[in-house]
This record gives sequence, C-alpha cells and structure tokens, in this order.
Amino acid sequence: MERVKKFIEALEKEGIDAALVCNVEYSSRPTTMYLSGFTGSLSFLVITKENQFIITDSRYFEQAKQQTFFTLIEHRGLNVYDTITNVLQTVKPQTIGLEFSRVSHEMYIKLTERYPAVYKPIDHIVERMRMVKEPQEIENIKRAIHISEEALIQTLPLVKDGVTEKDIAAELEYRMKKLGADGIAFETIVISGPRTALPHGRASDRRIRMNEPILFDFGAKYNGYCADITRTFYLGKPDEEFLKIYNTVLEAQTLALEKGNGRMSGKELDSIARAHIVNKGFGECFGHGLGHGLGLEVHEAPRVNQSNESILPVGAVVTIEPGIYIEGKFGVRIEEDVVIREDCLERLTHLERKLQVL
Amino acid sequence: MERVKKFIEALEKEGIDAALVCNVEYSSRPTTMYLSGFTGSLSFLVITKENQFIITDSRYFEQAKQQTFFTLIEHRGLNVYDTITNVLQTVKPQTIGLEFSRVSHEMYIKLTERYPAVYKPIDHIVERMRMVKEPQEIENIKRAIHISEEALIQTLPLVKDGVTEKDIAAELEYRMKKLGADGIAFETIVISGPRTALPHGRASDRRIRMNEPILFDFGAKYNGYCADITRTFYLGKPDEEFLKIYNTVLEAQTLALEKGNGRMSGKELDSIARAHIVNKGFGECFGHGLGHGLGLEVHEAPRVNQSNESILPVGAVVTIEPGIYIEGKFGVRIEEDVVIREDCLERLTHLERKLQVL
Repeated sequence: MERVKKFIEALEKEGIDAALVCNVEYSSRPTTMYLSGFTGSLSFLVITKENQFIITDSRYFEQAKQQTFFTLIEHRGLNVYDTITNVLQTVKPQTIGLEFSRVSHEMYIKLTERYPAVYKPIDHIVERMRMVKEPQEIENIKRAIHISEEALIQTLPLVKDGVTEKDIAAELEYRMKKLGADGIAFETIVISGPRTALPHGRASDRRIRMNEPILFDFGAKYNGYCADITRTFYLGKPDEEFLKIYNTVLEAQTLALEKGNGRMSGKELDSIARAHIVNKGFGECFGHGLGHGLGLEVHEAPRVNQSNESILPVGAVVTIEPGIYIEGKFGVRIEEDVVIREDCLERLTHLERKLQVL
Repeated sequence: MERVKKFIEALEKEGIDAALVCNVEYSSRPTTMYLSGFTGSLSFLVITKENQFIITDSRYFEQAKQQTFFTLIEHRGLNVYDTITNVLQTVKPQTIGLEFSRVSHEMYIKLTERYPAVYKPIDHIVERMRMVKEPQEIENIKRAIHISEEALIQTLPLVKDGVTEKDIAAELEYRMKKLGADGIAFETIVISGPRTALPHGRASDRRIRMNEPILFDFGAKYNGYCADITRTFYLGKPDEEFLKIYNTVLEAQTLALEKGNGRMSGKELDSIARAHIVNKGFGECFGHGLGHGLGLEVHEAPRVNQSNESILPVGAVVTIEPGIYIEGKFGVRIEEDVVIREDCLERLTHLERKLQVL
C-alpha cells in the first residue's frame, strides 16, 4: 500500500498518468510481487492514483483475491489485449509508464496499436524503489540465507572422491527445499578441479577427485527473496599456491567487509577489494565486479563495480564476492551477502570464511 | 548446420539479409541452442548466408568454442551493443530479422538507434522450424520422459498421510536430477485434496491426507529438451464421484490418443476429447486446451486447442492432457506426450494411465 503510494508519487513527478506492469510467463514477477503481492505467471497491473487493477485469467482468480488488494479484472476469452485495452479505456491515461526492459517489442507494438498514447519507461523508478529494502524484505533474505547455509552444512559430508558435481548439486538443492525454500534463486553451481577457474561454470558430470578444490555458488529463495552465497573448499591437502590465492581472496573480502559503508560509491567499494588483489599480482585474474544487489532477483541494483559511481544506498542488500581465476588450474571465490548501513556493512551470511579442508 | 541452412533460406524468402538472435540472461536460449548449439546465458547470433557469428563474453569463450561452429566474436568491455554494432557494420545488412517476442522494447530501441535498418520479426520462422522435430530431438525428449517416469515411480512410495506437497515435490525433483536430468522443465506441481481443482496450483505446505487425490504435473529436462507428464492418484479409497470423473478424463484421453493423427487440426484433436467430456456433462469443468507443443520449451507450437485450425505437422511433439476440475472439491488431469505421425499419435510416455490407488 505504502509502496504503491510512493510509486504513484514517482510516476506523477515524471508526468505519467498510469503504469502498466506486464507479466507474461513470469516476465515481470518481481515487480508485480513488489507492488501488488501477486505471484502468478500472468498478470497486468494498471496503476493510477485513483485505482489499482490487476488483470489475470481463470487459473489465478482465487489466488489474486487472496494475495492482493488490487481490484481484480477477470480476463476471459482468447485475447488478453482486449481486456487490457478495456481497462485503459476506462482509466483514459494519456501517458503510460511501462517497464521497457521487461516488455517484449512485440507486446509494445500490440499495446501501442490498440491504445495509442505516450509510452514512457519506468524501469528506473522500479529499480530505485526495489533497491532499498524494508525490514521485512531483509528478514526474508535472512531466512533464504539461513536455509542455504544449513543446506550446505548438511551437504558437505557427502563430498568425497569420485562423486559427480551434479550429484552434489542435486543433494544441495534437495536440502534447501526440505528446509523450506520456495525454490532455488538460480541454477546451482558446483564445480571442481580446473573447472573452478570458470566464473560461471555449471554442475557437470565431472567426478570430484582428492587434492582438488570444489566451489559452491548457490542460494535458496524464500517468499520470493534470494540468497546468493559462494564458498570454495579443498578436498585433501592444498598446496602453497592454492593457499596463497585463497588467502588473497579472503583478505580482499575482509577489507571490503570491514571498510565498506553507505557513504561510498559502488566503484569505491569494489576498489577496496580490487586494490588488494592487484597488489598481490592477480589483478588480471579478477575479471568481474565485486558484487551486485540482491532481493526479489538475484541480480539487481545497485552494482558494486568500477562503472557504478553512485553512492551505495543505505538499506540495499549486495553481495561481496571477490575471486581469482587461474585458467586451466583453479579458481577461488568467496561470497557474502550484506546490508549497506550508513557506517558499515552488516553481514547476513554466517558460514566460516577461512579455508575449510574436507 | 542443416538447420542454419534452412533458416537462411527462410530468411531469404522474406527478404531478410541477416538474423540477430539476442539471448540475455537466457532470454532466447532455446532458439540459440537450436541454431548454434550454445547453451550459455548471454549470446548474440548474427546469421547471414556468408557467415555465422556468435558474440559472447569472457565467461563463455571456451564454452562457445566447444559448443558451436559459429565464428566466435569475443566481447570485452562494458557495452555489448558496441560489439554487436561492430559486427553489423561488417556484415552491412539492410534488413535484419529479430525475434520480436524475445527482444525487450528497450533492446529494440538501443539496436535501432545504433544500427538503423529495417527490422522484421522472425518469430514465426523459428517457431515453424522448431515445431517439427528431428529424430535426435525426439530421442532427447524420450530420455527426458524416461527420467521423469522413473523418478515418479521412485517417489510414489513416499506419499503417505501427513507428508507435505512441497516435500514430495522436493523428492521428485531430487530423483530426476540423480537420474541424469539437466534440470527440471518447469516448476513441479504436486497438489492434493481440494487443491487438485487448481489447474495451475503449485506445491504448498499442505499435508496430504488419507482419502484424497494427489496430482503430479512435472517433467525433467535432458539436453535442453522437456518432458511434461501429469498423473492423478488417490490415497485411500476413492468414492464413486471421483471414479466417475477420473474415468471420464481417461476415456476422453484414450479417444484422443487412438483417433488423433497428422491429418487433423489442433481444433479437431481437441474436439475429440472435449466432446466426450461435454457429453458426460463436465464441459464447463475443462477450461483449458487439450495440449501444446513440447521441445526445447515446455510450451511451444503447435497448440492443440479450439483456436488452432491448422493441420498438426507430422513430427511435432505435443501433450494430450484433458482435465476436469470441480471447484472446492477436486480435479483430475492425465497428460501424455506424443509425436504426431501421419496416421496416428505415437506415445512417448509409458506410465499406467488407469487410476492407481496409493
């Protein structure tokens, strides 16, 4: 309710009469959930100061009544654009806000043909609002993190010489769900040996062997909110080179966690960790940003990287995930989730960060 | 290779010089896989008669080299539109084909601003090609189905009074992955009691009770290809009303499976099952189409419903899934996957269709 009020104020400032949030096969589920509470796969929100409508089909009439205070418009028949156009003709907006990055070009053409008006992007408004988390949102992220951490602790004893990456990933996902996750926040990454050098490798049929690293990058979803955690372990006895790189990543992360706060830009926070890795001679091996916002989506604003010169907003939840990747050999990444506070970063993750040998 | 040749011929017929397939966060993974073999989350294919390029970033350079014969263009730097524009300026197309339903309006604006040309939709070309499956594609679907069926058989003994829907869904997904699935084709539906009347209910924390139905709608993915199977079981002793409705659905499905072939339209095939349900007095309780195409996506062309008057193409794989839903009481749906053959429907699913009591 309060969110919708703020959203409408932001629309008014930009001279937009009505927002139309289009959600087809979950294409805008996060924004739809955020504004209306509705979680289904198909909906169209029409939001004005006077009225808030939700259009959905017979699969979701009951669910919409339970989940949202928006006025339900029941779509029946074959063409949902007819129903949308009818609602717009009642509301009569001259300027309509759309999420240009979420609406397909096909849908844009159909909408503008059927209801000619000035269409303006509202992605930045939604992004700005969703970036700063309310206490209840942080509670949901904490719960998602707790489930993820517990599941990892339960899964680690299964990591043994000869087990496949995919098997371990299946075990981890299973435990997150048994612990109450709605689902997984993204495809679980379990990679081992030289594959740890792939920043976005997926779990494969490769068997984990003794004296190799194993990297987990994973997260549960709870009430729609995501966790995103990475840990790198070692099965057997790590050599000096591995230890050196692990500790460099750990130190870089510790610096960022200890020095970060809500008075610095994404670029400044990234630079704290990056400078340490560069000083140790591994600058070329840290090819991605330090982190990203986390919430109803696993990647959202704000970015913590060299291209974000804006001050990090107090209340945003971001990841802190430095990594060093040595092609053909191995990689190390450690990832924590934190809330940006005015004077510090509040850690939401609690797993051990020091190297654990399995 | 052969696919790309056919695709280029189809482009030429419509006067399109080059196709640009944009895949951002998996937004066009199915078409990208279909044409190039690449499975990553970010890629741009530029396809002309002379050259086939794939643009991706450092996460995927190695993977792209392994998966596709397309010429790799390494994207480095912050703005991928720069790299796309560079490739287009080399190729110099005057007419560019885009998947209008897969490209966001924002991306469309950025592309057309940077590289002005005539942009035309190619969604129908891709859809038409992907609809008719090659033998290897059918093999992948069969494997996905086999994994799904085995996993269900392993999961059924766990269905007992007091177990939650979510727990059963977690068990089923775990088994699909252990049996070799890449992942799940869609969010697993396990619903029980009166919730079986929700055609698109999701697994919830509800506990399954004695003398209730339980409905599974689920599927594994294998090599990117989807299975989609539904079975409705009964825990305990079903009453007459349930048996009557179950058998009506079963008979409707049997009629469609036995009479269907590649000389009828989607509408005609739908009507075979629908007529039986209408005759039994449940026409109002079968609110969705009889089926849909299945392949790299769980819902694709052709549709098997009253609005598809086109002849079903030989070689398409579709679902046959009649259902009857009695609001507030229960629902029954049974879903098989079949290949359209000239003279018949070839069943790919093998689970028992008659009512099984648990």
